[in-house]
Amino acid sequence: MRNFNEDNITSAVLASLSGCRDERTKQISEALVRHLHAFVKEIEPTEAEWSRAIALLTETGQMCSQTRQEFILLSDTLGVSMLVDAINHRFPGNATETTVLGPFYVEQARDFELGAHIASAQDGTPMIVEGNVRDSRGEPIAGALIETWHADDHGLYDVQRGTDKSALNLRARLRTDEAGRFWYRSIVPAAYPVPSDGPVGRMLDAQGRHPFRPAHVHFKVSAPGFETIVTHVFIAGDAYLDSDVVFGVKDALIAQLESIEGRMSPAGHAVEPATALLAYDFVLPRQR
Amino acid sequence: MRNFNEDNITSAVLASLSGCRDERTKQISEALVRHLHAFVKEIEPTEAEWSRAIALLTETGQMCSQTRQEFILLSDTLGVSMLVDAINHRFPGNATETTVLGPFYVEQARDFELGAHIASAQDGTPMIVEGNVRDSRGEPIAGALIETWHADDHGLYDVQRGTDKSALNLRARLRTDEAGRFWYRSIVPAAYPVPSDGPVGRMLDAQGRHPFRPAHVHFKVSAPGFETIVTHVFIAGDAYLDSDVVFGVKDALIAQLESIEGRMSPAGHAVEPATALLAYDFVLPRQR
Ligand SMILES: [Fe+2]
Ligand SMILES: [Fe+2]
Repeated sequence: MRNFNEDNITSAVLASLSGCRDERTKQISEALVRHLHAFVKEIEPTEAEWSRAIALLTETGQMCSQTRQEFILLSDTLGVSMLVDAINHRFPGNATETTVLGPFYVEQARDFELGAHIASAQDGTPMIVEGNVRDSRGEPIAGALIETWHADDHGLYDVQRGTDKSALNLRARLRTDEAGRFWYRSIVPAAYPVPSDGPVGRMLDAQGRHPFRPAHVHFKVSAPGFETIVTHVFIAGDAYLDSDVVFGVKDALIAQLESIEGRMSPAGHAVEPATALLAYDFVLPRQR
Repeated sequence: MRNFNEDNITSAVLASLSGCRDERTKQISEALVRHLHAFVKEIEPTEAEWSRAIALLTETGQMCSQTRQEFILLSDTLGVSMLVDAINHRFPGNATETTVLGPFYVEQARDFELGAHIASAQDGTPMIVEGNVRDSRGEPIAGALIETWHADDHGLYDVQRGTDKSALNLRARLRTDEAGRFWYRSIVPAAYPVPSDGPVGRMLDAQGRHPFRPAHVHFKVSAPGFETIVTHVFIAGDAYLDSDVVFGVKDALIAQLESIEGRMSPAGHAVEPATALLAYDFVLPRQR
């Protein structure tokens, strides 16, 4: 354990891991050391560059707060979150496609009745969201928990506007009815830039990338005995569908937003004329 | 830019980097994405594991302060700092071996006259440090700047004991005399654990590793026209020489600490009897 140079340092660090408390810690530690050393050997950073890397990581951690998670944003914008999502959702058959959770999920959202309006103010284009939840054979799942959240018409989430509980908005927990149906009223969300006033914003700028995500509504759908589906429904026609900064778009998750002419939605719910309709059905795979 | 899965996400992220502002940013970004994705594909983290990784990185950033740099510590304990050091100091011939800077370097240390006592209190075993600075042909380098710092007899650095400028201790800037010689008085440093009350400490614990570094004195030696040497001199016989937690030990940097019997050091400086002698000569390579 002495005299380390470029040729022997990696195996020395790997050897130091022989006493890991458990096999998984050992596996992750070894892989981290191998890949991290390979990265450093490939780029051969100057000492000034390595200092800047340390400073960037430090600032990323220090940017995090109750309402801001800059490391998730880094993971998202480097495509790692989508990769972790793909690895963890190798669902068979016709299960709904998944995509990233993102940094704006809130566990303690308000419960709403089906049909409720979940926007606290009346700005924006009215929207009804409706659909149903079924198993892979088409049987309805009653009482499934729908957690949904989305940005406002300026592209901002409630947690970006205020941090106390009364500021929660455009965010709801609902249960499907006995026929597996759900519906609620809200406003049409806008496309938005991920927070770009921190280190991730500077990274994107240096990489010549815009910080935008196409307009979407988030869903987390769960029911006992089934795998939980975390996904978005994207709005067709958005300018950023082909350049989502977090690589989250899938064709099967894009829905056409249409304006309802009459006073009733396709599923039979009363609405104002010119309400936008977002309809999407979810299929949950059985837990393995 | 849609429908990403485990097979195509990496090339999609690489494609998004085509507009990087400069070639070096592109090179580093591409390598980061390739190696980071390869790491994730190898370990296949669960979503809970990836959340814990995000939380660990966040805590590492938030642990950092004016006197604590947990990300440098992470880099050090994963052997990355030694690797970056090796990559950046491919010096020819007989130049002094380098090792990591470590997190305890302070730029604004006090200037001392040659021969000064740099310990503010009298605790610990008295030590005289002496040597000379030469070029690779053996010619003395006059006026070379010696920056030196080390832990106290309890294994603590000044910056770990207090944060204001008056707390600076066991840390000095000195200039070699016209014959390239330097000498100063201090106390013998102890081996020490790196700070282990944070995420790096928990990582070391999970990996079954102790947090200790063998006793050493840090040196940064510089002179106009020469490469700067950042290194340590380790004390022979230390129990941790073969398991330094930051992989920094090299045989050529180990010096025997001997007790001086009389009243004069080998280089002719007056000392108390039983003063420990740490003698080391530095060779600076010419700047290329
Ligand atoms: Fe979102
Ligand atoms: Fe040290």
